[in-house]
Amino acid sequence: MKSDIEIALECEMKPIVRLAGELGIKEEELEPYGHYKAKLGQPLIDRLRDRPDGKLVLVTAINPTPAGEGKTTTTVGLGEAMQKLGKNCVIALREPSLGPVFGVKGGAAGGGYAQVVPMEDINLHFTGDMHAITAANNLICAAVDNHIQQGNPLGIDPRRITFKRAMDMNDRALRNIVVGLGGPLSGVPRQDGFLISVASEIMAILCLADDLKDLKERIGRILVGYTYEKEPVYVRDLEISGAVTCLLKDAINPNLVQTLEGSPAILHGGPFANIAHGCNSVRATRLALKLGDYCITEAGFGSDLGAEKFLDIKCRAAGLAPSAIVVVATVRALKYNGGVKKGDLALEDPGAVRAGLPNLQAHLENMRKYGVPVVAAINHFAGDFDSEVAEVARCLDEMGVPYALSDVFSQGGAGGVELAQLVCRACEEPGRFAPLYDAALPIEEKIGAIAREIYGAAGVEYTSAARQQMRQIEQLGRDDLPVCIAKTQYSLSDDPKKLGRPRGFTLQVKEVRLSSGAGFLVALAGDIMTMPGLPPRPAACQIDIDEDGRITGLF
Amino acid sequence: MKSDIEIALECEMKPIVRLAGELGIKEEELEPYGHYKAKLGQPLIDRLRDRPDGKLVLVTAINPTPAGEGKTTTTVGLGEAMQKLGKNCVIALREPSLGPVFGVKGGAAGGGYAQVVPMEDINLHFTGDMHAITAANNLICAAVDNHIQQGNPLGIDPRRITFKRAMDMNDRALRNIVVGLGGPLSGVPRQDGFLISVASEIMAILCLADDLKDLKERIGRILVGYTYEKEPVYVRDLEISGAVTCLLKDAINPNLVQTLEGSPAILHGGPFANIAHGCNSVRATRLALKLGDYCITEAGFGSDLGAEKFLDIKCRAAGLAPSAIVVVATVRALKYNGGVKKGDLALEDPGAVRAGLPNLQAHLENMRKYGVPVVAAINHFAGDFDSEVAEVARCLDEMGVPYALSDVFSQGGAGGVELAQLVCRACEEPGRFAPLYDAALPIEEKIGAIAREIYGAAGVEYTSAARQQMRQIEQLGRDDLPVCIAKTQYSLSDDPKKLGRPRGFTLQVKEVRLSSGAGFLVALAGDIMTMPGLPPRPAACQIDIDEDGRITGLF
Repeated sequence: MKSDIEIALECEMKPIVRLAGELGIKEEELEPYGHYKAKLGQPLIDRLRDRPDGKLVLVTAINPTPAGEGKTTTTVGLGEAMQKLGKNCVIALREPSLGPVFGVKGGAAGGGYAQVVPMEDINLHFTGDMHAITAANNLICAAVDNHIQQGNPLGIDPRRITFKRAMDMNDRALRNIVVGLGGPLSGVPRQDGFLISVASEIMAILCLADDLKDLKERIGRILVGYTYEKEPVYVRDLEISGAVTCLLKDAINPNLVQTLEGSPAILHGGPFANIAHGCNSVRATRLALKLGDYCITEAGFGSDLGAEKFLDIKCRAAGLAPSAIVVVATVRALKYNGGVKKGDLALEDPGAVRAGLPNLQAHLENMRKYGVPVVAAINHFAGDFDSEVAEVARCLDEMGVPYALSDVFSQGGAGGVELAQLVCRACEEPGRFAPLYDAALPIEEKIGAIAREIYGAAGVEYTSAARQQMRQIEQLGRDDLPVCIAKTQYSLSDDPKKLGRPRGFTLQVKEVRLSSGAGFLVALAGDIMTMPGLPPRPAACQIDIDEDGRITGLF
Repeated sequence: MKSDIEIALECEMKPIVRLAGELGIKEEELEPYGHYKAKLGQPLIDRLRDRPDGKLVLVTAINPTPAGEGKTTTTVGLGEAMQKLGKNCVIALREPSLGPVFGVKGGAAGGGYAQVVPMEDINLHFTGDMHAITAANNLICAAVDNHIQQGNPLGIDPRRITFKRAMDMNDRALRNIVVGLGGPLSGVPRQDGFLISVASEIMAILCLADDLKDLKERIGRILVGYTYEKEPVYVRDLEISGAVTCLLKDAINPNLVQTLEGSPAILHGGPFANIAHGCNSVRATRLALKLGDYCITEAGFGSDLGAEKFLDIKCRAAGLAPSAIVVVATVRALKYNGGVKKGDLALEDPGAVRAGLPNLQAHLENMRKYGVPVVAAINHFAGDFDSEVAEVARCLDEMGVPYALSDVFSQGGAGGVELAQLVCRACEEPGRFAPLYDAALPIEEKIGAIAREIYGAAGVEYTSAARQQMRQIEQLGRDDLPVCIAKTQYSLSDDPKKLGRPRGFTLQVKEVRLSSGAGFLVALAGDIMTMPGLPPRPAACQIDIDEDGRITGLF
C-alpha cells in the first residue's frame, strides 16, 4: 500500500474558493492561504448567526495502544461517507502540532484514504496558528521576566511563576531549565521550563473563546504566578492583554480544507487532552454546525479523557449538545487491553480480544451516561482476524449498541457508509444531553464524580499540596469551574499499566492548578508529560524534500 | 500627525492579484496569504529566468542615532517616487522581526506616508517566514540534544555545541540558560542560550540560497559543534537536512505586498547586520530585478555594516552588481555624530551638524571605493532647521555628490521625486562594481581590508582565541569565505562612543566563527547582542486590538 504522503500528493484538490462556494461561503468571506487552505473569519460567522444548527456527532475511542487507534481517520472517513449518502456534512478536527511530526507519531491528518489535504502543509506550518500561539505564550513569559528585571513593582516572586515558556517541538532538554543566567544585564536567574505549544493555556483559551473580546478577557485572566505576598498575578496586571491578543487575531479564525474526496473539513486548535480539554475550537464547531446539517468532530485520546472533557468542559462552556457519539474500537487495542504485549498484537488471539472487551464496555456505558445515543465503530486494520472481529461484534450485540465495521483507511468514504447510516439514525433518536456534574459543586466532588463515574475508581486521594491548592482556588473564588483531569491515556485509571477495566483503585491527585483564562481547574493524577522527547531515530531522519519541493517520508 | 498604524489602516489596498497582474504575474504563479499578501514561487522565477535584469539601487546610511534614520522609509518613498516618474520599479526590503515590535522600536515597515502595507500583518506574523526559520533552527537543536541523550554515537561534546536555540522575541532571560536538567529522562545538562530568530544562521542561509537544492546543501553544512575529539559536527551528520529544509519550503519564496501608494514591494528575509549580512534574500532581489526596470533595496544599519556586507557578501555570492548607491543622512544623526546628547537633538545647532559631517564624508568615500555612482539623500524630519540642512548641502556640494532633500515620511512618493531623478541619472553612469577584497586572501588580510578601508582603523588586534579559531577554520579548509564583521552600528569603529569619523584606533577581534552553511566567517569585534531585551515599559503595553479586530498602538 502507498504511504499517507504518497496518497495525499496524488489527490487532485478542488480550489478552496470552489470548496467554499459549495458551502455557500462567498469569496470575500474567505482569507486564502495558498490555493487549498483558507481562514473563515468573523464576517462569515456573523452572517450565519441566525441559521439553525446542524447535528453534532462526537467521535471518541477506547483506551488506545501507543500507536493510536485511528480516531481521526475514522472521523474523516465518516465525514466522507456522510457525503456519499448525500448529507451536507462538515468535519471539525484539531489541527496537528509540528513537534510530533518529527518524533514518533508522524502526521495527524488522518491516514490512508481518509485524510485531510494538503496533508504536508497541514502537518507543517498550516496557517500559522500554532506559531501564533507559541509567540503569544512567550510574549507573556518575556514580559514576566522583564517585569522582574526592571525593578519588579508588582513584587512577583521568581520562585512562584507558574506560566511556562512554549515551543512547538519535541525537545526534552527544555523540560527543566534555568533562565536568566549571565549577570545583571541578562535577567534574574530562576527555574523554568518549556511546554510543547499544544499544552499552553493559550491553546486552551483559543479553543474556548467566543470571539476577540472574549479572547482578550480570557488572556487577561491568565494566572502567571504569585507575588512575595502570595497574591495572584494575572496577565492583565502586566498590561499586555491587547498585545497578546493581537498575536492571535488570525489564529482565532477557523481553517477550511478538504478531505481526499473533497468533503469540507474545518481544522482549528488542538489542545492536549490531559492537561487541557483536547478538542478543536468552539468557533470551529459552531461554524461547522452552521455550515452543515451534520458536524462530525473528535476529541483526543480515549473517551475517559477527550470525550469527558468535550462533554463536561467544551459543550458546557459553549452551550453545545451532541446528537450522537461514536466510540471507535480496534481489535488491536482490545488485544492490548486484554494483556497482549505490543510486539505480539499481529498474532491471532480472539481470547485476548475477549479479555479486553470490558474496556470497550466501560467506554460505551460511560458515554451513555450523558444521555446521548451511542454507536460503535470497529476500525478495521489489514491484519485483523475474523475470529477477533466476531468477538467484538458479539459483545456489541449483547450490549445492544448499534455498530459497523469501518474500513475508511483503505477504502475512503465507501468504507464508512454503514457507519454513516447508523450515525444518521442515532441522530434522529431523542437526546437529552446533560453534563456529568454540576460545576457549582465543591472541587473534590467534581473530581470524585469523574473518578467514580467515568474511570471506575473507588475513591480519590489528594496530596497535601493538592489540598492546599484547592483551598487557594476557593479563596480566589474560582472553585466553580469545571475540572480537567490530567492522567494517562493508556488506562481508565491513573496507572498506564492497569489495562482493561480496572476497579477498586484510588485516583491519586498530586496537584490542582487553576487554568484561569481557559476557565477550568486541572487536577494532575500522575506524571503528565507536557514536553515530549524525540525517539532514538526521529521521524525527521526519514523526511526529505527534493529540488522540486516534493516531500517524502511524512506519514 | 497621524500614527503609522492610523495611516496604514486608512489605505485602500489593491487586491494582491491585481498588483501582481500589473507586474505581469499570472494568478496561478501567486500563493495568496489573504487578499493583500502573496508568495512568489519557483514557477515564476523559472519563467522569468531569461529576462534581462533591471538596475539595482542600494539604499544605505550614515551611523544612526539609537532611533534609526529612516532608511526603510526612504527606500519605500524612493520606490514610490520612481513610480511617479513612470518608472517600472520594485522595492526589495527585509521583513520585520516580531521581537522588536513589542520592545522599543515598534514596527519596521517604513513610516508616515512611506510604508508597506498591510503594515499590521507585516509586523506580526506576515507569511510565517520568521516562524518557519525559528522552527527549523530549533529542530536542529532538539536533534543535537536528542543525539546526545540517545547514546551519542557521534561523540558530540556537550561543552562544545556552538549552534544555539532561537526565538522571535526580545527576551533577555533566554540569553544564557542551562538546559537538560531534571534527571536522566530529560536530557543531558549543558549551557545553552537563545538567539533572536533573525540572528539564526538559518536566516542568513535562507537569504543567500539560490533554490531548495542549494538551501538543503547549505543546511547540511551548518556546523553545530565539535566531538570530544574536536572534530566538526554538521547538520548532515544528524541526517535531518531534509526535514529542516521541509520546514522552509514556503519560507524560501519571496513575499509580495504594496506600498501605501500601490507600488510593488517584495519583502523577504531579514538577517541581523552584525553577526549576519543584513540584507533581504538573494531570491527576492533577483526576482525584483526580473520584474522591474529598477530594484530599490536596503541593507541594515550604516554603510559600514549593511552596505559593506551587501556588496562584499551578498553581491559577490549572487553575482549582483548595483548601479547606484543612496546614502541616507539626517540632520539629527549628524548632530549626534557631532557630539550632541540624545535629549538635545531637537535644538537648532548647525555647528554640531558641521562637527558630525566627517561621518557622512566617510560613508560617501567608502561607497565610492566600490566603483558605483553614489547619491546622497537628506531625510527630512519635521524639526530640522534650514541652517542645519544648509551645512549638509554645503558639504555635499564640496564633495561633488549629487543630493536631494527627501520628505517621503510626510509626503509619500511626492517627497522623493527629486531624489528619484538623481538616482535614475546615476544609474546611467558607467559602473565598474568590484568587491573590496579578494575572498581567497588569508582571513587576517580580509578583516584588515575592511577595518582599514571602511572603518578607518589603524590596525587589527586579535585575541588568542580568535587566532586559534582562524587556524581551525583554515584546517577545515573554509578560510576562503568572505568575512562578516560584527561590531556596533553606532560608530565606524568598534566602540559605540567614538562618534563622527574616528581614526587611529585598533579594531579588537575577540572571536572568529564559521557560519558554514551561510558561507561566511563572522569576526566579532565587541559584545554583540544576539538576543535583545525589553525596555522598562515595552511597546507591548501600548498595543491593543478591539472586538472588531482594529489594532492600535503599533508604530
